[in-house]
Amino acid sequence: MIQESENTLKVAQQAFEHLIHGMATGEWEALLNMLTEDFTLWFPMGKFHGSNVGKERAREFFQYVSDSFSPGLKLKSLDSVTSNETTAVFEFRDEGVLFEQPYKNRVAVSFDVRGDQICGYREYFGSDGKSY
Amino acid sequence: MIQESENTLKVAQQAFEHLIHGMATGEWEALLNMLTEDFTLWFPMGKFHGSNVGKERAREFFQYVSDSFSPGLKLKSLDSVTSNETTAVFEFRDEGVLFEQPYKNRVAVSFDVRGDQICGYREYFGSDGKSY
Repeated sequence: MIQESENTLKVAQQAFEHLIHGMATGEWEALLNMLTEDFTLWFPMGKFHGSNVGKERAREFFQYVSDSFSPGLKLKSLDSVTSNETTAVFEFRDEGVLFEQPYKNRVAVSFDVRGDQICGYREYFGSDGKSY
Repeated sequence: MIQESENTLKVAQQAFEHLIHGMATGEWEALLNMLTEDFTLWFPMGKFHGSNVGKERAREFFQYVSDSFSPGLKLKSLDSVTSNETTAVFEFRDEGVLFEQPYKNRVAVSFDVRGDQICGYREYFGSDGKSY
């Protein structure tokens, strides 16, 4: 049980690093390579609101994130990491430029882990995009 | 370390139960009794957007939640509970009536624990208030 929890945290932390890298550079392959074929992603609103299924849809989503935030979205602070045997939640603040407007937000991202892969992702917004 | 984590989870779960009770009934004393004097609450938007400090401000916030959702906000499902030594995060779905409109949402709430009390609360929205 402890070993499973340690593995979950390790895998999720790797995924989080790849998420931050993708947000900053638009390079998503490292994160996409960690996803299971039945990967599901839940997003709070907009074009990808709701449940998105599969790796191709995930690729479209992450590309959309990069297309929206130019020249990139930076991690401002990682506020908390919590986990259980299957899931890890990362609370963080990020900033960048969204469609040419200054953007600051708080975010919570939840990764579900299966083995050494990510099978689920849920995003939650902690602020209004203007301040954190 | 393990004992501290177990205590954190136990205290946070108690707070979560009181949160759900307050959401459903408008009775907030049980939750308010768990808060430290320096309690801080972060909310994503609206009247209480940003950082809210102290128990009196917390009381105003939770009363505002009950005033907005009449006859009450119900827990639909608890999707995940993760924790570390100081913090626990609850991902859940809720539903009710918000200003006379049907309301459904996903929420992540993070509780910071100090001893047998709650010293911090951060809320994140996982959907648009219309579907979960």
